[in-house]
Amino acid sequence: MTFWGQKTFCIIAGASRGIGRSISIKFSENVAPGSVFLLLARTKDALETVKQEILQAPSNNCKAVIATALDLSNPNQQAFNEAVSNAFTQSGTTPSDFQHSILVQCAASLGIDKGYKVQNIQDVQYIKNYFDFNVTSFILLNAVFCDLVLDKKDETSTGRQTTIIHISSHGAVEPFKTWGLYCSARAAKNMLLRSISLESPNVQTINYAPGMVDTENYKEAEKHTGDPELVKYFAEQRASGLLLTPDQTVTKLVQILATKKYVKGEHISYDD
Amino acid sequence: MTFWGQKTFCIIAGASRGIGRSISIKFSENVAPGSVFLLLARTKDALETVKQEILQAPSNNCKAVIATALDLSNPNQQAFNEAVSNAFTQSGTTPSDFQHSILVQCAASLGIDKGYKVQNIQDVQYIKNYFDFNVTSFILLNAVFCDLVLDKKDETSTGRQTTIIHISSHGAVEPFKTWGLYCSARAAKNMLLRSISLESPNVQTINYAPGMVDTENYKEAEKHTGDPELVKYFAEQRASGLLLTPDQTVTKLVQILATKKYVKGEHISYDD
Repeated sequence: MTFWGQKTFCIIAGASRGIGRSISIKFSENVAPGSVFLLLARTKDALETVKQEILQAPSNNCKAVIATALDLSNPNQQAFNEAVSNAFTQSGTTPSDFQHSILVQCAASLGIDKGYKVQNIQDVQYIKNYFDFNVTSFILLNAVFCDLVLDKKDETSTGRQTTIIHISSHGAVEPFKTWGLYCSARAAKNMLLRSISLESPNVQTINYAPGMVDTENYKEAEKHTGDPELVKYFAEQRASGLLLTPDQTVTKLVQILATKKYVKGEHISYDD
Repeated sequence: MTFWGQKTFCIIAGASRGIGRSISIKFSENVAPGSVFLLLARTKDALETVKQEILQAPSNNCKAVIATALDLSNPNQQAFNEAVSNAFTQSGTTPSDFQHSILVQCAASLGIDKGYKVQNIQDVQYIKNYFDFNVTSFILLNAVFCDLVLDKKDETSTGRQTTIIHISSHGAVEPFKTWGLYCSARAAKNMLLRSISLESPNVQTINYAPGMVDTENYKEAEKHTGDPELVKYFAEQRASGLLLTPDQTVTKLVQILATKKYVKGEHISYDD
Protein backbone atom coordinates (compact mmCIF):
# COMPACT_ATOMS: atom_id res chain seq x y z
CA MET A 1 0.00 0.00 0.00
CA THR A 2 1.26 3.42 -0.84
CA PHE A 3 0.14 6.52 1.00
CA TRP A 4 -0.67 8.64 -2.04
CA GLY A 5 -2.53 7.87 -5.23
CA GLN A 6 -5.41 6.23 -3.40
CA LYS A 7 -9.07 7.01 -3.61
CA THR A 8 -9.22 9.02 -0.43
CA PHE A 9 -11.70 10.46 2.02
CA CYS A 10 -9.90 13.36 3.68
CA ILE A 11 -11.04 15.64 6.47
CA ILE A 12 -9.05 18.80 7.17
CA ALA A 13 -9.96 20.54 10.44
CA GLY A 14 -8.82 24.15 10.28
CA ALA A 15 -8.86 24.19 6.48
CA SER A 16 -9.70 27.84 5.94
CA ARG A 17 -6.22 29.34 6.05
CA GLY A 18 -2.51 28.84 6.49
CA ILE A 19 -1.20 25.31 6.72
CA GLY A 20 -4.70 23.80 6.71
CA ARG A 21 -5.55 25.55 3.47
CA SER A 22 -2.31 24.42 1.86
CA ILE A 23 -2.85 20.83 3.03
CA SER A 24 -6.34 20.86 1.53
CA ILE A 25 -4.98 21.88 -1.84
CA LYS A 26 -1.77 19.83 -1.96
CA PHE A 27 -3.29 16.65 -0.57
CA SER A 28 -6.05 16.87 -3.18
CA GLU A 29 -3.37 16.83 -5.90
CA ASN A 30 -1.90 13.58 -4.56
CA VAL A 31 -4.98 11.39 -4.29
CA ALA A 32 -6.76 9.30 -6.89
CA PRO A 33 -9.85 10.32 -8.87
CA GLY A 34 -13.08 9.86 -6.95
CA SER A 35 -11.69 11.27 -3.70
CA VAL A 36 -13.83 13.34 -1.35
CA PHE A 37 -12.53 16.18 0.81
CA LEU A 38 -14.31 17.63 3.82
CA LEU A 39 -13.08 21.06 4.87
CA LEU A 40 -13.90 22.15 8.41
CA ALA A 41 -13.46 25.52 10.12
CA ARG A 42 -15.58 28.06 11.90
CA THR A 43 -16.06 30.35 8.90
CA LYS A 44 -17.86 29.00 5.88
CA ASP A 45 -16.88 31.81 3.48
CA ALA A 46 -13.16 31.17 3.78
CA LEU A 47 -13.74 27.44 3.33
CA GLU A 48 -15.70 28.07 0.13
CA THR A 49 -12.70 29.92 -1.28
CA VAL A 50 -10.41 26.97 -0.53
CA LYS A 51 -12.99 24.61 -2.00
CA GLN A 52 -12.99 26.56 -5.27
CA GLU A 53 -9.18 26.53 -5.32
CA ILE A 54 -9.24 22.74 -5.11
CA LEU A 55 -11.97 22.28 -7.71
CA GLN A 56 -10.41 24.69 -10.21
CA ALA A 57 -6.92 23.19 -10.04
CA PRO A 58 -5.98 21.41 -13.31
CA SER A 59 -4.92 18.35 -11.33
CA ASN A 60 -8.09 18.16 -9.26
CA ASN A 61 -8.97 14.57 -8.38
CA CYS A 62 -11.88 15.26 -6.10
CA LYS A 63 -15.30 13.94 -6.87
CA ALA A 64 -16.62 16.29 -4.19
CA VAL A 65 -15.27 18.95 -1.88
CA ILE A 66 -17.55 19.77 1.01
CA ALA A 67 -17.10 22.93 3.05
CA THR A 68 -18.79 22.70 6.44
CA ALA A 69 -18.77 25.36 9.13
CA LEU A 70 -18.04 23.72 12.47
CA ASP A 71 -17.14 25.48 15.68
CA LEU A 72 -14.16 23.47 16.95
CA SER A 73 -14.01 25.56 20.10
CA ASN A 74 -17.31 23.98 21.16
CA PRO A 75 -16.87 20.20 21.09
CA ASN A 76 -20.32 18.80 20.47
CA GLN A 77 -20.79 15.13 19.76
CA GLN A 78 -23.89 15.50 17.62
CA ALA A 79 -22.54 18.41 15.57
CA PHE A 80 -19.21 16.67 14.92
CA ASN A 81 -20.92 13.43 13.91
CA GLU A 82 -23.32 15.23 11.60
CA ALA A 83 -20.52 17.18 9.95
CA VAL A 84 -18.65 14.00 9.04
CA SER A 85 -21.69 11.86 8.25
CA ASN A 86 -23.12 14.52 5.98
CA ALA A 87 -19.94 14.50 3.90
CA PHE A 88 -20.69 10.92 2.93
CA THR A 89 -24.36 11.65 2.31
CA GLN A 90 -23.68 14.75 0.25
CA SER A 91 -21.05 13.03 -1.88
CA GLY A 92 -23.15 9.88 -2.30
CA THR A 93 -20.40 7.73 -0.85
CA THR A 94 -19.82 5.37 2.05
CA PRO A 95 -16.57 4.86 3.98
CA SER A 96 -15.93 1.54 2.23
CA ASP A 97 -15.81 3.32 -1.13
CA PHE A 98 -12.38 4.69 -0.21
CA GLN A 99 -8.97 3.03 -0.08
CA HIS A 100 -7.69 5.59 2.37
CA SER A 101 -9.31 7.80 5.01
CA ILE A 102 -7.27 10.70 6.36
CA LEU A 103 -8.02 13.15 9.17
CA VAL A 104 -5.76 16.17 9.41
CA GLN A 105 -6.01 18.06 12.69
CA CYS A 106 -4.76 21.58 11.91
CA ALA A 107 -6.98 23.69 14.10
CA ALA A 108 -5.39 25.18 17.21
CA SER A 109 -5.26 28.41 19.14
CA LEU A 110 -2.11 29.75 20.79
CA GLY A 111 -3.45 30.65 24.24
CA ILE A 112 -0.85 33.41 24.52
CA ASP A 113 -3.00 36.53 24.25
CA LYS A 114 -2.91 37.23 27.99
CA GLY A 115 0.88 36.98 28.12
CA TYR A 116 0.61 34.56 31.03
CA LYS A 117 3.45 32.68 32.56
CA VAL A 118 2.08 29.33 33.75
CA GLN A 119 2.58 30.46 37.34
CA ASN A 120 0.09 33.30 36.73
CA ILE A 121 -2.80 31.43 35.14
CA GLN A 122 -5.67 31.54 37.61
CA ASP A 123 -8.44 32.21 35.09
CA VAL A 124 -10.24 28.88 35.25
CA GLN A 125 -12.65 29.61 32.41
CA TYR A 126 -9.74 30.64 30.19
CA ILE A 127 -8.00 27.31 30.86
CA LYS A 128 -11.20 25.35 30.28
CA ASN A 129 -11.92 27.13 27.02
CA TYR A 130 -8.37 26.52 25.87
CA PHE A 131 -8.53 22.79 26.53
CA ASP A 132 -12.05 22.55 25.07
CA PHE A 133 -10.83 23.87 21.74
CA ASN A 134 -7.37 22.37 21.69
CA VAL A 135 -7.73 18.98 23.36
CA THR A 136 -11.36 17.95 23.92
CA SER A 137 -12.34 18.89 20.38
CA PHE A 138 -9.26 17.06 19.08
CA ILE A 139 -10.22 13.89 20.98
CA LEU A 140 -13.83 14.07 19.84
CA LEU A 141 -12.99 14.57 16.17
CA ASN A 142 -10.51 11.69 16.22
CA ALA A 143 -13.17 9.45 17.74
CA VAL A 144 -15.97 10.51 15.39
CA PHE A 145 -13.64 9.96 12.42
CA CYS A 146 -12.52 6.52 13.63
CA ASP A 147 -16.06 5.45 14.44
CA LEU A 148 -17.30 6.32 10.98
CA VAL A 149 -14.42 5.15 8.79
CA LEU A 150 -13.01 2.07 10.53
CA ASP A 151 -14.45 -1.28 9.56
CA LYS A 152 -16.10 -2.66 12.69
CA LYS A 153 -15.93 -6.31 11.70
CA ASP A 154 -12.31 -6.77 10.87
CA GLU A 155 -10.22 -3.69 10.97
CA THR A 156 -7.09 -5.22 9.47
CA SER A 157 -8.41 -7.33 6.62
CA THR A 158 -9.97 -4.74 4.37
CA GLY A 159 -6.76 -3.33 2.98
CA ARG A 160 -8.09 0.14 3.58
CA GLN A 161 -5.76 2.66 5.20
CA THR A 162 -6.69 5.05 8.00
CA THR A 163 -4.44 7.95 8.96
CA ILE A 164 -4.62 10.78 11.48
CA ILE A 165 -2.17 13.66 11.16
CA HIS A 166 -1.72 16.22 13.92
CA ILE A 167 -0.09 19.42 12.74
CA SER A 168 1.91 19.76 15.92
CA SER A 169 4.77 22.00 17.00
CA HIS A 170 8.24 21.95 18.48
CA GLY A 171 6.31 23.21 21.52
CA ALA A 172 5.03 19.66 22.02
CA VAL A 173 8.51 18.55 23.06
CA GLU A 174 10.14 21.73 24.41
CA PRO A 175 8.54 24.48 26.49
CA PHE A 176 8.51 28.08 25.24
CA LYS A 177 8.28 30.94 27.71
CA THR A 178 4.68 32.27 28.08
CA TRP A 179 3.40 29.45 25.87
CA GLY A 180 2.60 27.01 28.67
CA LEU A 181 -0.97 26.17 27.74
CA TYR A 182 0.01 25.76 24.11
CA CYS A 183 2.94 23.47 24.84
CA SER A 184 1.01 21.37 27.34
CA ALA A 185 -1.90 20.88 24.92
CA ARG A 186 0.55 19.98 22.13
CA ALA A 187 2.23 17.43 24.39
CA ALA A 188 -1.19 16.01 25.26
CA LYS A 189 -2.18 15.74 21.60
CA ASN A 190 1.08 14.10 20.59
CA MET A 191 0.48 11.52 23.32
CA LEU A 192 -3.13 10.96 22.21
CA LEU A 193 -2.03 10.05 18.69
CA ARG A 194 0.67 7.74 20.02
CA SER A 195 -2.05 6.11 22.15
CA ILE A 196 -4.33 5.63 19.15
CA SER A 197 -1.68 3.83 17.08
CA LEU A 198 -0.67 1.71 20.06
CA GLU A 199 -4.29 0.73 20.72
CA SER A 200 -5.27 0.35 17.08
CA PRO A 201 -2.27 -0.53 14.89
CA ASN A 202 -4.48 -0.19 11.82
CA VAL A 203 -4.71 3.56 12.46
CA GLN A 204 -1.57 5.34 11.25
CA THR A 205 -0.77 8.51 13.14
CA ILE A 206 1.84 11.21 12.77
CA ASN A 207 2.68 14.31 14.79
CA TYR A 208 4.21 16.75 12.34
CA ALA A 209 5.95 19.91 13.56
CA PRO A 210 5.83 22.20 10.52
CA GLY A 211 8.70 24.52 11.45
CA MET A 212 8.46 28.31 11.53
CA VAL A 213 5.75 29.11 9.01
CA ASP A 214 4.41 32.51 7.99
CA THR A 215 0.76 32.14 9.00
CA GLU A 216 -1.85 34.18 10.85
CA ASN A 217 -0.84 32.26 13.98
CA TYR A 218 2.77 33.33 13.45
CA LYS A 219 1.66 36.96 13.20
CA GLU A 220 -0.33 36.51 16.38
CA ALA A 221 2.74 34.98 18.03
CA GLU A 222 4.84 37.98 17.02
CA LYS A 223 2.23 40.37 18.36
CA HIS A 224 1.07 38.72 21.59
CA THR A 225 3.93 36.61 22.96
CA GLY A 226 4.59 37.75 26.51
CA ASP A 227 8.29 36.87 26.64
CA PRO A 228 10.48 39.64 25.12
CA GLU A 229 13.31 37.28 24.11
CA LEU A 230 10.88 35.11 22.20
CA VAL A 231 9.32 38.15 20.52
CA LYS A 232 12.82 39.15 19.40
CA TYR A 233 13.48 35.64 18.13
CA PHE A 234 10.25 35.62 16.12
CA ALA A 235 11.15 39.01 14.60
CA GLU A 236 14.65 37.79 13.72
CA GLN A 237 13.24 34.73 12.04
CA ARG A 238 11.03 36.92 9.88
CA ALA A 239 13.82 39.40 9.13
CA SER A 240 16.13 36.56 8.14
CA GLY A 241 13.77 35.56 5.37
CA LEU A 242 13.85 31.99 6.68
CA LEU A 243 10.17 31.72 7.55
CA LEU A 244 8.59 28.96 5.53
CA THR A 245 5.49 29.39 3.43
CA PRO A 246 2.63 27.02 4.20
CA ASP A 247 3.22 25.38 0.81
CA GLN A 248 6.87 24.70 1.63
CA THR A 249 6.15 22.83 4.84
CA VAL A 250 3.18 20.99 3.35
CA THR A 251 5.31 19.89 0.38
CA LYS A 252 7.74 18.40 2.89
CA LEU A 253 4.88 16.71 4.75
CA VAL A 254 3.61 15.19 1.50
CA GLN A 255 7.12 13.79 0.90
CA ILE A 256 7.38 12.42 4.45
CA LEU A 257 4.02 10.69 4.11
CA ALA A 258 5.16 9.15 0.81
CA THR A 259 7.88 7.30 2.74
CA LYS A 260 5.29 5.83 5.15
CA LYS A 261 7.98 5.36 7.77
CA TYR A 262 6.43 7.60 10.35
CA VAL A 263 2.99 6.30 11.17
CA LYS A 264 2.96 5.48 14.90
CA GLY A 265 2.57 8.93 16.35
CA GLU A 266 6.22 9.82 15.88
CA HIS A 267 7.05 13.49 16.33
CA ILE A 268 8.58 14.53 12.99
CA SER A 269 9.81 18.04 12.26
CA TYR A 270 10.20 19.92 9.02
CA ASP A 271 13.89 20.17 9.89
CA ASP A 272 14.43 16.44 10.48
CA MET B 1 21.06 25.85 50.09
CA THR B 2 20.04 22.31 50.84
CA PHE B 3 16.65 20.91 50.02
CA TRP B 4 15.91 19.38 53.41
CA GLY B 5 16.36 20.69 56.92
CA GLN B 6 14.76 24.03 56.11
CA LYS B 7 11.84 25.71 57.81
CA THR B 8 9.27 24.71 55.24
CA PHE B 9 5.75 25.53 54.15
CA CYS B 10 4.51 22.42 52.36
CA ILE B 11 1.24 21.78 50.57
CA ILE B 12 0.33 18.23 49.62
CA ALA B 13 -2.61 17.92 47.22
CA GLY B 14 -4.05 14.44 47.46
CA ALA B 15 -2.66 13.88 50.95
CA SER B 16 -5.33 11.56 52.31
CA ARG B 17 -3.95 8.24 51.10
CA GLY B 18 -1.29 6.34 49.21
CA ILE B 19 1.73 8.24 47.99
CA GLY B 20 0.32 11.61 49.11
CA ARG B 21 -0.13 10.34 52.65
CA SER B 22 3.39 8.93 52.72
CA ILE B 23 4.83 12.19 51.35
CA SER B 24 3.02 14.14 54.04
CA ILE B 25 4.58 12.02 56.76
CA LYS B 26 8.09 11.55 55.36
CA PHE B 27 8.53 15.14 54.21
CA SER B 28 7.52 16.34 57.69
CA GLU B 29 10.38 14.28 59.13
CA ASN B 30 12.92 16.03 56.89
CA VAL B 31 12.12 19.69 57.49
CA ALA B 32 13.23 22.03 60.24
CA PRO B 33 11.21 22.91 63.36
CA GLY B 34 8.60 25.58 62.79
CA SER B 35 7.42 24.09 59.48
CA VAL B 36 3.78 24.20 58.43
CA PHE B 37 2.05 21.51 56.36
CA LEU B 38 -1.23 21.95 54.51
CA LEU B 39 -2.94 18.70 53.58
CA LEU B 40 -5.54 18.89 50.81
CA ALA B 41 -8.00 16.29 49.57
CA ARG B 42 -11.71 15.93 49.12
CA THR B 43 -12.35 14.05 52.36
CA LYS B 44 -11.57 15.80 55.61
CA ASP B 45 -11.77 12.70 57.83
CA ALA B 46 -8.95 10.88 56.06
CA LEU B 47 -6.82 14.04 56.15
CA GLU B 48 -7.34 14.34 59.90
CA THR B 49 -5.93 10.83 60.32
CA VAL B 50 -2.81 11.75 58.35
CA LYS B 51 -2.52 14.97 60.34
CA GLN B 52 -2.49 13.00 63.60
CA GLU B 53 0.13 10.62 62.20
CA ILE B 54 2.41 13.58 61.49
CA LEU B 55 1.82 15.28 64.83
CA GLN B 56 2.32 12.11 66.86
CA ALA B 57 5.58 11.08 65.19
CA PRO B 58 8.57 11.39 67.56
CA SER B 59 10.47 13.34 64.91
CA ASN B 60 7.64 15.77 64.19
CA ASN B 61 8.97 19.19 63.21
CA CYS B 62 5.70 20.83 62.32
CA LYS B 63 4.49 23.88 64.14
CA ALA B 64 1.12 23.29 62.52
CA VAL B 65 -0.53 20.73 60.26
CA ILE B 66 -3.70 21.96 58.62
CA ALA B 67 -6.17 19.55 57.03
CA THR B 68 -8.45 21.28 54.55
CA ALA B 69 -11.13 19.61 52.45
CA LEU B 70 -10.87 20.89 48.89
CA ASP B 71 -12.59 19.42 45.86
CA LEU B 72 -9.79 19.27 43.30
CA SER B 73 -12.19 18.02 40.65
CA ASN B 74 -13.82 21.45 40.72
CA PRO B 75 -11.12 24.05 40.07
CA ASN B 76 -12.35 27.21 41.75
CA GLN B 77 -10.08 30.20 42.05
CA GLN B 78 -11.61 31.57 45.24
CA ALA B 79 -11.75 28.21 47.01
CA PHE B 80 -8.16 27.33 46.09
CA ASN B 81 -6.89 30.76 47.21
CA GLU B 82 -8.77 30.58 50.48
CA ALA B 83 -7.46 27.09 51.21
CA VAL B 84 -3.86 28.20 50.87
CA SER B 85 -4.26 31.64 52.44
CA ASN B 86 -6.05 30.19 55.45
CA ALA B 87 -3.10 27.91 56.14
CA PHE B 88 -0.98 30.97 56.80
CA THR B 89 -3.70 32.64 58.86
CA GLN B 90 -4.40 29.54 60.92
CA SER B 91 -0.72 28.90 61.63
CA GLY B 92 -0.01 32.56 62.38
CA THR B 93 2.67 32.69 59.68
CA THR B 94 3.43 34.55 56.47
CA PRO B 95 5.24 33.14 53.41
CA SER B 96 8.42 35.02 54.29
CA ASP B 97 8.65 33.12 57.58
CA PHE B 98 9.78 30.06 55.63
CA GLN B 99 13.07 29.19 53.98
CA HIS B 100 11.41 26.76 51.61
CA SER B 101 7.91 26.47 50.13
CA ILE B 102 6.95 23.18 48.53
CA LEU B 103 3.85 22.18 46.61
CA VAL B 104 3.38 18.47 45.95
CA GLN B 105 0.78 17.66 43.32
CA CYS B 106 -0.30 14.08 44.06
CA ALA B 107 -3.96 14.16 43.20
CA ALA B 108 -5.00 12.47 39.98
CA SER B 109 -7.68 10.20 38.60
CA LEU B 110 -7.04 7.43 36.11
CA GLY B 111 -9.79 8.08 33.57
CA ILE B 112 -9.89 4.37 32.73
CA ASP B 113 -13.21 3.31 34.25
CA LYS B 114 -15.01 3.24 30.89
CA GLY B 115 -12.32 1.07 29.30
CA TYR B 116 -12.10 3.49 26.39
CA LYS B 117 -9.57 3.37 23.66
CA VAL B 118 -8.84 6.95 22.61
CA GLN B 119 -10.57 6.28 19.30
CA ASN B 120 -13.81 5.61 21.20
CA ILE B 121 -13.99 8.63 23.49
CA GLN B 122 -16.95 10.69 22.33
CA ASP B 123 -18.30 11.57 25.78
CA VAL B 124 -17.48 15.28 25.85
CA GLN B 125 -18.49 15.81 29.48
CA TYR B 126 -16.32 12.90 30.53
CA ILE B 127 -13.30 14.43 28.80
CA LYS B 128 -14.03 17.86 30.25
CA ASN B 129 -14.39 16.49 33.77
CA TYR B 130 -11.17 14.55 33.38
CA PHE B 131 -9.17 17.60 32.31
CA ASP B 132 -10.85 19.80 34.95
CA PHE B 133 -9.58 17.54 37.71
CA ASN B 134 -6.27 16.50 36.23
CA VAL B 135 -5.03 19.55 34.35
CA THR B 136 -7.05 22.70 35.08
CA SER B 137 -6.96 22.10 38.82
CA PHE B 138 -3.22 21.38 38.58
CA ILE B 139 -2.60 24.67 36.75
CA LEU B 140 -4.74 26.64 39.19
CA LEU B 141 -3.10 25.22 42.30
CA ASN B 142 0.40 25.85 40.89
CA ALA B 143 -0.57 29.46 40.20
CA VAL B 144 -2.24 30.08 43.56
CA PHE B 145 0.80 28.61 45.31
CA CYS B 146 3.28 30.71 43.29
CA ASP B 147 1.22 33.85 43.73
CA LEU B 148 1.16 33.49 47.50
CA VAL B 149 4.68 32.26 48.23
CA LEU B 150 6.92 33.97 45.66
CA ASP B 151 8.42 37.29 46.61
CA LYS B 152 6.97 39.82 44.17
CA LYS B 153 9.75 42.38 44.46
CA ASP B 154 12.82 40.32 43.79
CA GLU B 155 12.27 36.66 43.36
CA THR B 156 15.91 35.66 43.34
CA SER B 157 17.42 37.71 46.16
CA THR B 158 15.57 36.38 49.17
CA GLY B 159 17.42 33.10 49.45
CA ARG B 160 14.10 31.37 49.90
CA GLN B 161 13.47 28.21 47.88
CA THR B 162 10.28 27.37 46.00
CA THR B 163 9.62 23.87 44.69
CA ILE B 164 6.76 22.17 42.86
CA ILE B 165 6.72 18.39 42.64
CA HIS B 166 4.38 16.54 40.31
CA ILE B 167 3.91 12.90 41.22
CA SER B 168 3.84 11.83 37.61
CA SER B 169 3.96 8.47 35.84
CA HIS B 170 5.77 6.56 33.16
CA GLY B 171 2.53 7.23 31.29
CA ALA B 172 3.70 10.81 30.81
CA VAL B 173 6.36 9.62 28.39
CA GLU B 174 4.96 6.36 27.00
CA PRO B 175 1.35 5.55 26.09
CA PHE B 176 -0.47 2.65 27.77
CA LYS B 177 -3.37 0.96 26.01
CA THR B 178 -6.79 2.26 27.22
CA TRP B 179 -5.03 4.91 29.33
CA GLY B 180 -5.10 7.67 26.71
CA LEU B 181 -6.63 10.43 28.81
CA TYR B 182 -4.34 9.62 31.70
CA CYS B 183 -1.18 9.62 29.58
CA SER B 184 -2.12 12.80 27.74
CA ALA B 185 -2.86 14.66 30.98
CA ARG B 186 0.42 13.41 32.48
CA ALA B 187 2.30 14.62 29.41
CA ALA B 188 0.56 17.98 29.70
CA LYS B 189 1.43 18.28 33.40
CA ASN B 190 5.08 17.35 32.84
CA MET B 191 5.25 20.09 30.21
CA LEU B 192 3.58 22.63 32.50
CA LEU B 193 6.24 22.12 35.18
CA ARG B 194 9.02 22.38 32.61
CA SER B 195 7.39 25.64 31.47
CA ILE B 196 7.29 27.02 35.00
CA SER B 197 11.00 26.43 35.65
CA LEU B 198 11.89 27.84 32.23
CA GLU B 199 9.80 30.96 32.86
CA SER B 200 10.76 31.34 36.51
CA PRO B 201 14.17 29.82 37.25
CA ASN B 202 13.62 30.51 40.95
CA VAL B 203 10.88 27.87 40.97
CA GLN B 204 12.34 24.39 41.14
CA THR B 205 10.17 21.71 39.55
CA ILE B 206 10.38 17.95 39.28
CA ASN B 207 8.23 15.34 37.56
CA TYR B 208 8.66 12.17 39.58
CA ALA B 209 7.40 8.83 38.26
CA PRO B 210 7.02 6.72 41.40
CA GLY B 211 7.15 3.28 39.79
CA MET B 212 4.56 0.56 40.34
CA VAL B 213 3.17 1.29 43.80
CA ASP B 214 0.51 -0.61 45.72
CA THR B 215 -2.11 2.13 46.14
CA GLU B 216 -5.86 2.46 45.73
CA ASN B 217 -5.15 3.74 42.22
CA TYR B 218 -3.18 0.57 41.47
CA LYS B 219 -6.13 -1.54 42.64
CA GLU B 220 -8.40 0.52 40.43
CA ALA B 221 -5.99 -0.03 37.53
CA GLU B 222 -6.07 -3.79 38.09
CA LYS B 223 -9.86 -3.77 38.20
CA HIS B 224 -10.83 -1.32 35.46
CA THR B 225 -8.10 -1.30 32.80
CA GLY B 226 -9.70 -2.08 29.45
CA ASP B 227 -6.69 -3.72 27.82
CA PRO B 228 -6.38 -7.44 28.77
CA GLU B 229 -2.59 -7.55 28.29
CA LEU B 230 -2.14 -4.65 30.63
CA VAL B 231 -4.47 -6.24 33.21
CA LYS B 232 -2.32 -9.35 33.03
CA TYR B 233 0.83 -7.28 33.45
CA PHE B 234 -0.59 -5.53 36.51
CA ALA B 235 -1.53 -8.88 38.04
CA GLU B 236 1.94 -10.29 37.34
CA GLN B 237 3.56 -7.30 39.00
CA ARG B 238 1.50 -7.88 42.12
CA ALA B 239 2.12 -11.64 42.10
CA SER B 240 5.85 -11.08 41.72
CA GLY B 241 5.93 -9.21 45.00
CA LEU B 242 7.73 -6.36 43.26
CA LEU B 243 5.09 -3.70 43.83
CA LEU B 244 6.52 -0.88 45.86
CA THR B 245 4.95 0.44 49.03
CA PRO B 246 4.21 4.17 49.09
CA ASP B 247 6.93 4.56 51.72
CA GLN B 248 9.52 2.91 49.49
CA THR B 249 8.98 5.24 46.55
CA VAL B 250 8.71 8.31 48.78
CA THR B 251 11.97 7.39 50.53
CA LYS B 252 13.59 7.35 47.09
CA LEU B 253 12.02 10.71 46.25
CA VAL B 254 13.36 12.20 49.49
CA GLN B 255 16.83 10.97 48.50
CA ILE B 256 16.53 12.37 44.96
CA LEU B 257 15.49 15.75 46.31
CA ALA B 258 18.47 15.74 48.66
CA THR B 259 20.75 15.71 45.60
CA LYS B 260 19.00 18.80 44.16
CA LYS B 261 20.13 17.85 40.68
CA TYR B 262 16.67 17.48 39.24
CA VAL B 263 14.86 20.75 39.63
CA LYS B 264 13.94 21.92 36.11
CA GLY B 265 10.94 19.74 35.42
CA GLU B 266 13.03 16.69 34.59
CA HIS B 267 11.11 13.43 34.40
CA ILE B 268 12.75 11.21 37.00
CA SER B 269 11.67 7.65 37.72
CA TYR B 270 11.98 5.50 40.80
CA ASP B 271 13.98 3.12 38.61
CA ASP B 272 16.48 5.71 37.38
